[in-house]
Amino acid sequence: MTPTDRSGATPPSPRATVRRHPERAHYGLDTVHAILDEAIVSHVGFVVDGRPIVIPTLHARIGDTLYIHGSAAGRMLTTLAAGAEVCVTATLIDGLVLARSAMHHSINYRSVMLFGPTRVVTDREEKLRALEATVEHAVRGRSRDVRPPAEHELRATSVIALAIDEASAKVRAGGVVEDPADLALPVWAGVIPLSLTPGEPVTDDQGQVVPVPEYASSYRRSGTP
Amino acid sequence: MTPTDRSGATPPSPRATVRRHPERAHYGLDTVHAILDEAIVSHVGFVVDGRPIVIPTLHARIGDTLYIHGSAAGRMLTTLAAGAEVCVTATLIDGLVLARSAMHHSINYRSVMLFGPTRVVTDREEKLRALEATVEHAVRGRSRDVRPPAEHELRATSVIALAIDEASAKVRAGGVVEDPADLALPVWAGVIPLSLTPGEPVTDDQGQVVPVPEYASSYRRSGTP
Repeated sequence: MTPTDRSGATPPSPRATVRRHPERAHYGLDTVHAILDEAIVSHVGFVVDGRPIVIPTLHARIGDTLYIHGSAAGRMLTTLAAGAEVCVTATLIDGLVLARSAMHHSINYRSVMLFGPTRVVTDREEKLRALEATVEHAVRGRSRDVRPPAEHELRATSVIALAIDEASAKVRAGGVVEDPADLALPVWAGVIPLSLTPGEPVTDDQGQVVPVPEYASSYRRSGTP
Repeated sequence: MTPTDRSGATPPSPRATVRRHPERAHYGLDTVHAILDEAIVSHVGFVVDGRPIVIPTLHARIGDTLYIHGSAAGRMLTTLAAGAEVCVTATLIDGLVLARSAMHHSINYRSVMLFGPTRVVTDREEKLRALEATVEHAVRGRSRDVRPPAEHELRATSVIALAIDEASAKVRAGGVVEDPADLALPVWAGVIPLSLTPGEPVTDDQGQVVPVPEYASSYRRSGTP
């Protein structure tokens, strides 16, 4: 939407050039980690029979490793468990940028792309840590309350790991960028902020009802603590 | 996160099997359209040198055609303009599902995957309509207020089209699904709803200041009108 946007940062499609060299990334690993930690899902791209497939997936990060998981019998995990090349992209939408001209409209966003071959996690302890981290990724503080995975659940689940080394973060923030001639137009311009916002928790009434824990009643999505 | 989730709907990674046959899709075209219209960005997957690339991109829908655009000189548009096979995935996050066991945690979401070869839009009128639809996709009612694209802006921009025929929608909604034995656990369970929520518009002060239009002050993200 902003092919001629000249703001310092980079809008999504037009300038989202692929950077396979970490040293060329616009942002450091701290930014990469914070975006991955805040984004609930990422979009995992892989190639089957020469064609791309992109699937939304919960992820979790431990240090410099990203974990994703799924049914051991499923197509995605079967493909990734074989060490497929993936591109994992996580995107946070921060706002809509409304310029006075159509082509300078943009969005504020933060995005991370990771590349690399995947590794299937065979070590039982690493697998358990990755699954626990996934629960914590969704809701920090939750993992200590829940029943841990049973053996048959572990067997039915594959976990794959991706090293966070070929990473690129892209961020567009701030206000409108205009052609100077457009500033005189009698058109409102500005930013509509957007954020993924929690509502009131809805308690399940199937079993024991216990008080809503603070991690649910005060749920807040944020990056690296 | 829900390899053993037995809810009627399908969680993201574990069961997101690829359905290339529209007749097998779980939902009809109305659902596909509504999800595409509500999602601000989609993730576009394509293949370069045998490796997947996934880029977040603004899109717009007109009827049964999805449009994306970007710099004519950019890598994504250059690849797509050549008629590349793509997978375009749009995902809306509706909530976190907190079960009493780790492995039954899930998310409520709506997602669409589109497949197919792309077509570069060469017709000037179609290109203008697609760019106008992109502004309307971001903020309904906005396009009538803004300066339309100039010739040099049009030349610098490529628009590609994807027929919405090989489409698959997946939706998980509703509450917790548990193993019966877990219902007795003294653990809170339920759903934390999530939605992309607008904040107060921030008016740009570079040029003429005009009142905030209602489409910005009462901004609301929704599907097909």
